[in-house]
Amino acid sequence: MVKGFKAAGIAAGIKKDGGMDLGMMVSEVPAAVAGVFTRNKVRAAPVILDQERIKSGPCRAVIVNSGNANCCTGGRGMQDARRMAEIAASVLDMSADAVLVASTGVIGQPLPVQKIEAAASRLAGALSDEGFSDLAAAIMTTDTVPKMTTRRGEINGQNFSVVGVAKGAGMIRPDMATLLCFVATDAVISPDNLQLALAAAAEKSFNRITVDGDTSTNDTVLIMANGMSGASVDTPAAERVFQSMIDDVLITLAKMVVRDGEGATKLVEISVKGATAVSDAKRAADTVAHSNLVKTALFGEDANWGRIMAALGRSGARMDPADVDIWFNDVRLVGDGQWCGPEAEAAATDVLKTPEFAIRIDLKQGQGAYFCWTCDFSVDYVKINANYRS
Amino acid sequence: MVKGFKAAGIAAGIKKDGGMDLGMMVSEVPAAVAGVFTRNKVRAAPVILDQERIKSGPCRAVIVNSGNANCCTGGRGMQDARRMAEIAASVLDMSADAVLVASTGVIGQPLPVQKIEAAASRLAGALSDEGFSDLAAAIMTTDTVPKMTTRRGEINGQNFSVVGVAKGAGMIRPDMATLLCFVATDAVISPDNLQLALAAAAEKSFNRITVDGDTSTNDTVLIMANGMSGASVDTPAAERVFQSMIDDVLITLAKMVVRDGEGATKLVEISVKGATAVSDAKRAADTVAHSNLVKTALFGEDANWGRIMAALGRSGARMDPADVDIWFNDVRLVGDGQWCGPEAEAAATDVLKTPEFAIRIDLKQGQGAYFCWTCDFSVDYVKINANYRS
Repeated sequence: MVKGFKAAGIAAGIKKDGGMDLGMMVSEVPAAVAGVFTRNKVRAAPVILDQERIKSGPCRAVIVNSGNANCCTGGRGMQDARRMAEIAASVLDMSADAVLVASTGVIGQPLPVQKIEAAASRLAGALSDEGFSDLAAAIMTTDTVPKMTTRRGEINGQNFSVVGVAKGAGMIRPDMATLLCFVATDAVISPDNLQLALAAAAEKSFNRITVDGDTSTNDTVLIMANGMSGASVDTPAAERVFQSMIDDVLITLAKMVVRDGEGATKLVEISVKGATAVSDAKRAADTVAHSNLVKTALFGEDANWGRIMAALGRSGARMDPADVDIWFNDVRLVGDGQWCGPEAEAAATDVLKTPEFAIRIDLKQGQGAYFCWTCDFSVDYVKINANYRS
Repeated sequence: MVKGFKAAGIAAGIKKDGGMDLGMMVSEVPAAVAGVFTRNKVRAAPVILDQERIKSGPCRAVIVNSGNANCCTGGRGMQDARRMAEIAASVLDMSADAVLVASTGVIGQPLPVQKIEAAASRLAGALSDEGFSDLAAAIMTTDTVPKMTTRRGEINGQNFSVVGVAKGAGMIRPDMATLLCFVATDAVISPDNLQLALAAAAEKSFNRITVDGDTSTNDTVLIMANGMSGASVDTPAAERVFQSMIDDVLITLAKMVVRDGEGATKLVEISVKGATAVSDAKRAADTVAHSNLVKTALFGEDANWGRIMAALGRSGARMDPADVDIWFNDVRLVGDGQWCGPEAEAAATDVLKTPEFAIRIDLKQGQGAYFCWTCDFSVDYVKINANYRS
């Protein structure tokens, strides 16, 4: 799949339901590594560890568990995160400094590190070229489907590959937006350029999605590039090829996360143009995307544009209600702040009945534009989150 | 009830279900008037009209409908709001300039002003000293109970009274927080002092509540003081008496609104102390109060303190997770960022099973403190809002 990378996922007894909950990805050789992490001031122990470790040079492996976030676990949490890396290093026969760790699940409970220790040899034994789908399954929490995507590209006649897996269904908000994402590529690229490419791709993908507006404490996107394809990202043209592939992988995974948002039945692009500035367009799009009233109306397939207007009005974006146009795909429901009538309403309602569509807003104040993705807000979201820990 | 004030509420056929939807309150004599209004840039026509009208002197009446917000209705909306005032003025035999108007309900549909015209004489005929409970009922939308409270006070041996009614269950967020609230008092007070007293009381009440984080386009709090009790608010001591009564009326109504929040089963005070500044305490309290993950956990009666920590961490307030204490009433569940154990968890869960309680957070960084009120987030919230217009 991707030269020199193997992955695996198994059940180690961390999740109550006995599902897969321990995963790993490993490079044959030291790989350049880059990461973007949560901006929450409450950071899980593995986030703190990884942020240190990626500064110090190449890495070879990531070990990750679901079912427990190892967050708000104090000094013991940091010890457990380090221990988790040592366990992986031991079964993989490498230095613990070459191992990154990640955790996702309930906050505030001690990590059952002995379960990870007991399962580690079995996990290493399960590593294979085709193991990324198991890794994708092992990092799921409230996700209903595993999220994986692969791409193949060419630089100067040399093929290279990228594979990405992600998880995330709740606690999703821009400013870092998914819980976990791991990307492996066999391209040749320096750590600095890898970090730039990852940050740029995250800005176009995970930083533009919201499910419920809550930022996780564990958000981690890691990318490893082991260079084994020989395809070298060393010219502006090669950088464009590489960037567009990483963008594509992260955008694909980000949209999978929203589509699988807790209780979600719809993936909706919210795009704003005509704002006085990009920052205003972002404010307007984010406020509409986060509005519980807009999101419940999307669930009800109700073209309740008054709630969109109300969200725009409180967003802080410079606007005049009398200028606003609102489109559902190519149906204009609101023109110059006024309802366009029953035919437009019927057509907009038809758009709302589809699983994926765009709400496009034109403020007509200037040139600023921005878009993001959201989902609807359903009865199931509440059911899922009311009793998550039990 | 309050000297020289009468009120009424009737069914005028604006609501589809045939419920009461038209109300009025009238003073025998011109009354000092003050108001606070939504800060949403999208303002309903009656809000725009009232903001102009209260600048120009005393008023005598308020007419209000539910079932239609008269918002995003363009030039026709402003004409309809003015027409509504003229209709009331005509049946009450006063100048239209002395009449304030308010509307609440669906956004973006033209106001059926002919129904108001047809019902106006009947509304005026229903006016009585005891009509405030009918007024409270006539302004309900998704509210499940009418909200009314009365107080009696004394200034220099003179008795005076205050009555307040409010509605609001969704689109509730600080910065102005309720849809509609009307207060009548027979105290003697200048319009300027009345405005100061109202603004101070709103800051302690409606600006501290949230149901769903969406600011309404129609938020209006109006107070009329007709002076007929002879109790004059003209000394610092009298101002304190008057302020505490207005505070008490507005806080009581604000808590009624949260308790009756759409789908809500719990009223929860979120209080933060030990912040570096009051602004930080406010940021922290507001973020916890608005977190969908915290609110769904409250509905599930799950003491999921990790979600509170995660909300604090993204709030922007200066904090160190290792310093944070979290209490449920008098039960400390988190001490210095760590779980206090199974006994504390059991006791906190008992607190969560009660209908009203406080979550108290100590950041231990400084002297800043703030509190606000929120409710839980239930399956019924989504059901109510998915199909509000149908």
